[in-house]
Amino acid sequence: MRLSLACFAKPILHGYFRSSCSWRVRIAFALKGVEYDQLPVNLIKDGGQQLTEEYKALNPMQQVPAVEIDGTTLSQSLAVIQYIDETRPGPRLLPADPKARAQVRMISDLIASGIQPLQNLYVIQKIGAEKMQWSQHFIDRGFQALEPILKQTAGKYCVGDEISMADICLVPQVYNAERFKVDVGKYPTIKRLNEALLEIEAFQVSHPSRQPDTPDDLRA
Amino acid sequence: MRLSLACFAKPILHGYFRSSCSWRVRIAFALKGVEYDQLPVNLIKDGGQQLTEEYKALNPMQQVPAVEIDGTTLSQSLAVIQYIDETRPGPRLLPADPKARAQVRMISDLIASGIQPLQNLYVIQKIGAEKMQWSQHFIDRGFQALEPILKQTAGKYCVGDEISMADICLVPQVYNAERFKVDVGKYPTIKRLNEALLEIEAFQVSHPSRQPDTPDDLRA
Repeated sequence: MRLSLACFAKPILHGYFRSSCSWRVRIAFALKGVEYDQLPVNLIKDGGQQLTEEYKALNPMQQVPAVEIDGTTLSQSLAVIQYIDETRPGPRLLPADPKARAQVRMISDLIASGIQPLQNLYVIQKIGAEKMQWSQHFIDRGFQALEPILKQTAGKYCVGDEISMADICLVPQVYNAERFKVDVGKYPTIKRLNEALLEIEAFQVSHPSRQPDTPDDLRA
Repeated sequence: MRLSLACFAKPILHGYFRSSCSWRVRIAFALKGVEYDQLPVNLIKDGGQQLTEEYKALNPMQQVPAVEIDGTTLSQSLAVIQYIDETRPGPRLLPADPKARAQVRMISDLIASGIQPLQNLYVIQKIGAEKMQWSQHFIDRGFQALEPILKQTAGKYCVGDEISMADICLVPQVYNAERFKVDVGKYPTIKRLNEALLEIEAFQVSHPSRQPDTPDDLRA
């Protein structure tokens, strides 16, 4: 008789329905077909539940997401996504070819380091009254760079015809852009890719409008 | 008779001596023992040489570094470093074990997405007069999170006893912290790791004080 090693506990995602970095992880889980539990962290309520000592022990950056998985706790969405990719079966989230992998990481990092951090809640809270203009400026700046890159790399999706981590980063960033009233129509490749990706079930079930902590008035 | 496939052109790094993201790539090349050429992009002179149309064609984000390698042009330092790691022999820059790899990426992204973008030149130019305080605030915030994480993951280096991409990100970020007068002594693990890493040749030859474009008064 052999013991089954497949008997792992389900991963737990500590996230927030509207956090774009939490959404990235939800898409990755959905694409891989991994079941997980969600423990919502409300970034607004009680002055921000991510600021409690309890949550700080999970993620000292006091940001979402944090993921408990395989007996460890990880933060930083791209690190989590690549861990999921490297340890779970299902469609790969990074292509096999090293140049295509580099393109996927370049696009992902352009969003994850070049755009998202500048319109993150803890930054715009410090900006104060001008937060709308500030966020628009940096999202537009990033999209102006992303558009010509995607024009070169994209097929059906961000890099060729396979869904990848780049797509996982793109869709939540476009959602943020729309929240900050950026005219996404100025970026035809970004717009086309976003629309194609939103047709896919993994992007739909993970959408901010359909999470356990989505308020009723924002629910799809 | 067989043609040698090892006859590649040397990679070209478009960078700036003091840019922490350029330094990351220089460390990776040095650790791997890869020879490369440097084409300096002066971020200050002429209002910023990264803003020219010529450079924009290399990196639409108008930031350094951009790297021409194997017939393609890549930007985003962590994408470049992982491409170098996956295509060049020499010591690996990410560990073999998936959990350790995830820790390396988590630490790298905490710095590359959570700290560096907020004290980047194009951001602090927008902040104006308060740029010193602003930068200190976000570096301190990041180091307060990084310190307890490193306390758990570090051995001789950031993750265990092997040099990795996390170390490549740490040292240039500490250099930035010192430029912005952050008291690094408050973070004993960060301080210890930084000192140990600065003993290593790859971190020395790549140092901002020793580059082709280092001004004479800053040269070591």
